[in-house]
Amino acid sequence: MEVSERHLVTKITITPIAFRDLPLLNTVGVHETFALRAIVEIETDSGFTGLGETYGDAPHIARLKLVARDLIGVDIFNISEMRRRIILGLHADTTVGGHGMSGMVTGSSTPDRVLSPFDVAALDIQGKVVGRPVSDLLGGAVRSEIAFSGYLFYKWAGHPGQNEDSWGAALDTAGIVAQAARMITDFGFTALKLKGGVFTPEEEIDAVRGLRQAFPNHPLRLDPNGAWTVESSIKVGQALEGVLEYLEDPTPGITGMAAVRRGVPMPLATNMCVVSFDDVAPAVREGAVDVILSDHHFWGGLRRSQALAGITETFGLGLSMHSNSHLGISLAAMVHLAAATPNLDYACDTHWPWKDTDQDVIVPGVLSFHKGAVTVPTTPGLGVELDRDALARLHEQYLKCGLLNRDDTGYMKSIQPDYELLSPRW
Amino acid sequence: MEVSERHLVTKITITPIAFRDLPLLNTVGVHETFALRAIVEIETDSGFTGLGETYGDAPHIARLKLVARDLIGVDIFNISEMRRRIILGLHADTTVGGHGMSGMVTGSSTPDRVLSPFDVAALDIQGKVVGRPVSDLLGGAVRSEIAFSGYLFYKWAGHPGQNEDSWGAALDTAGIVAQAARMITDFGFTALKLKGGVFTPEEEIDAVRGLRQAFPNHPLRLDPNGAWTVESSIKVGQALEGVLEYLEDPTPGITGMAAVRRGVPMPLATNMCVVSFDDVAPAVREGAVDVILSDHHFWGGLRRSQALAGITETFGLGLSMHSNSHLGISLAAMVHLAAATPNLDYACDTHWPWKDTDQDVIVPGVLSFHKGAVTVPTTPGLGVELDRDALARLHEQYLKCGLLNRDDTGYMKSIQPDYELLSPRW
Repeated sequence: MEVSERHLVTKITITPIAFRDLPLLNTVGVHETFALRAIVEIETDSGFTGLGETYGDAPHIARLKLVARDLIGVDIFNISEMRRRIILGLHADTTVGGHGMSGMVTGSSTPDRVLSPFDVAALDIQGKVVGRPVSDLLGGAVRSEIAFSGYLFYKWAGHPGQNEDSWGAALDTAGIVAQAARMITDFGFTALKLKGGVFTPEEEIDAVRGLRQAFPNHPLRLDPNGAWTVESSIKVGQALEGVLEYLEDPTPGITGMAAVRRGVPMPLATNMCVVSFDDVAPAVREGAVDVILSDHHFWGGLRRSQALAGITETFGLGLSMHSNSHLGISLAAMVHLAAATPNLDYACDTHWPWKDTDQDVIVPGVLSFHKGAVTVPTTPGLGVELDRDALARLHEQYLKCGLLNRDDTGYMKSIQPDYELLSPRW
Repeated sequence: MEVSERHLVTKITITPIAFRDLPLLNTVGVHETFALRAIVEIETDSGFTGLGETYGDAPHIARLKLVARDLIGVDIFNISEMRRRIILGLHADTTVGGHGMSGMVTGSSTPDRVLSPFDVAALDIQGKVVGRPVSDLLGGAVRSEIAFSGYLFYKWAGHPGQNEDSWGAALDTAGIVAQAARMITDFGFTALKLKGGVFTPEEEIDAVRGLRQAFPNHPLRLDPNGAWTVESSIKVGQALEGVLEYLEDPTPGITGMAAVRRGVPMPLATNMCVVSFDDVAPAVREGAVDVILSDHHFWGGLRRSQALAGITETFGLGLSMHSNSHLGISLAAMVHLAAATPNLDYACDTHWPWKDTDQDVIVPGVLSFHKGAVTVPTTPGLGVELDRDALARLHEQYLKCGLLNRDDTGYMKSIQPDYELLSPRW
């Protein structure tokens, strides 16, 4: 038998980019004018290239660059070896921060966060080498369409000093219901999620009830990002009995979530108190959550996200998927992962609708929404192609915008100087 | 981009075989004159073939055949779809038994036990399609040599009515120490495991102490297969403080193991009370074990064994590997899995030394022991090749030997009519 051909990493390119974002409100502030991402390209000595996408915060990019040089020479099929080198390489890391989530999630594993785009790019190349979609490298697709939820945000009409954007303001129940209606018209979503923690719990309960009335058959979720005390969380949970599919991160921390869980009737979901493998055992022990929202960007890529799926299945937990502002490479990765994860029980989150169609780095046409779902690409690898002109344009945008870190709170304070970061807020 | 080429299953062949076995003693009886296995061959429309190996008990073979017809037409990269069809297909299963372990492990998952050889054969084909070893399809090898432990058994000199075999008798401490000496000479093992539960705990404590004296640097394990009460287990554990690397399944059941664990100084390992994903949460909750001995034959193949590895890592449990009497296809599968499992913390178990070299179905030469370890094949797929003449010979042996199920207890009773199956025994 012939010895297997190797495909060794010869070059890694990390390109920070910025894409226009809208003034979406959350409990730590408001989305800035641009969202930052980093695009990772891996090349092999055999002439293959693969794509990954991750956070664009400066300390994160510094870490990506720190470890990238150590990944030269690794066989593209050996993601375990990549991980080993990343863990070693990060011993030299002295930076802090760079979690890419504006302080909302800070406990995630640094090695897993750094590994993620390399894992995705390696799988993209593996798929191209093999001539198979990434979902096949993850055990095979169990579904061909991935359902997403419509992600509703309270928002300003436009960024201060700019024109009103096409979505306009949504600062009350009527605004949220109108936003949902458009999102359903444009994308066909069959589930809805409201980003809460912005107004009082009473106002947000009202918004959820408004959504229930307007869309009686859409599963509904509410996510205040830990903005509430245990007591407030229980009040909201009880008020929304029978209305919410799940309540997401009402209060910070595993112990607080466990206390809320004992007092509310619906499942509790999290992408804040269980964000790394180290959090799982304590959360299980304390009975803190019912559903984990996985996110390959902080769980170490697609293969380790599958390990998480095995854990949630084994421990009787539900599994859903979290989203940050992202572009098409990450959407493709999310879609392949979701396709190959039998126990993904819920429609996944995505910020996709908030991104202008001209703000991406992939050649358009592959990923589109139909009835709220994206068809899993069946071409080799991730199935998306880099548009180099677009990449250059978005990199230029990054250089011009001057942002180096996501800072929803700082931006909010620059507009409302009396704004205070409070956790919990109510 | 081109649409991926598919490789659809066109034919599945299941061949029961028997290979000569030696009178190895355990707490449920004694190994019969032949050990049974089933060899699974998958063929695809693209001309590839893949190999799997599993238990040869009649009800298990009936289940394999029952689901095999449902697997025709599945894409060889879609193991999730295979699993889905197997679960559906087994709804028609009315057989009982067939666990392949003579009553020692009965709680394992039937779908996972049935899936296993198909998963291995599919990965073998995937590797050949891709031109990569199976370890690469599991995330990449983190080691090139897999360490195994020397698996010591009390045994008779030969099967009743047959000549003494080359190993001769081992019915006391001196016999076990002599057996270990030969096994280390022949295979170079750097760790030793004694199958206990055969003689009184005092005699087996003496045997372990004899091994410690003769081989001061070899990690030692003792596995009585649940032969002892909680009290006896604690006595043995305390007597062997500082001597055993781990104590394996001293007593039956999760609750009993948890009680033992609170009273003994060394880690407790199991391949009896945690044998399926359903067992993991109770075992974690009760604090029953420190080390899980994985076994791809009952954990659903290589991919699901990796999910187990993710779980043990996440919950701070050790991971080792269990073995049944097996041939080269399974050894290759074990070696690839071990290579791609970073947190496999211990030398793996294997019955390999007890098998005559002429009793296998693979072309010899690939898998050999050097310093107690096997080099991971780097050729495409599992890296082993079926020897059709040998397969025919071992199938003929199966037909002639007349055995249809592993039955250590029945065989023992046929020789010692007053033998009683007791659990626990002491």
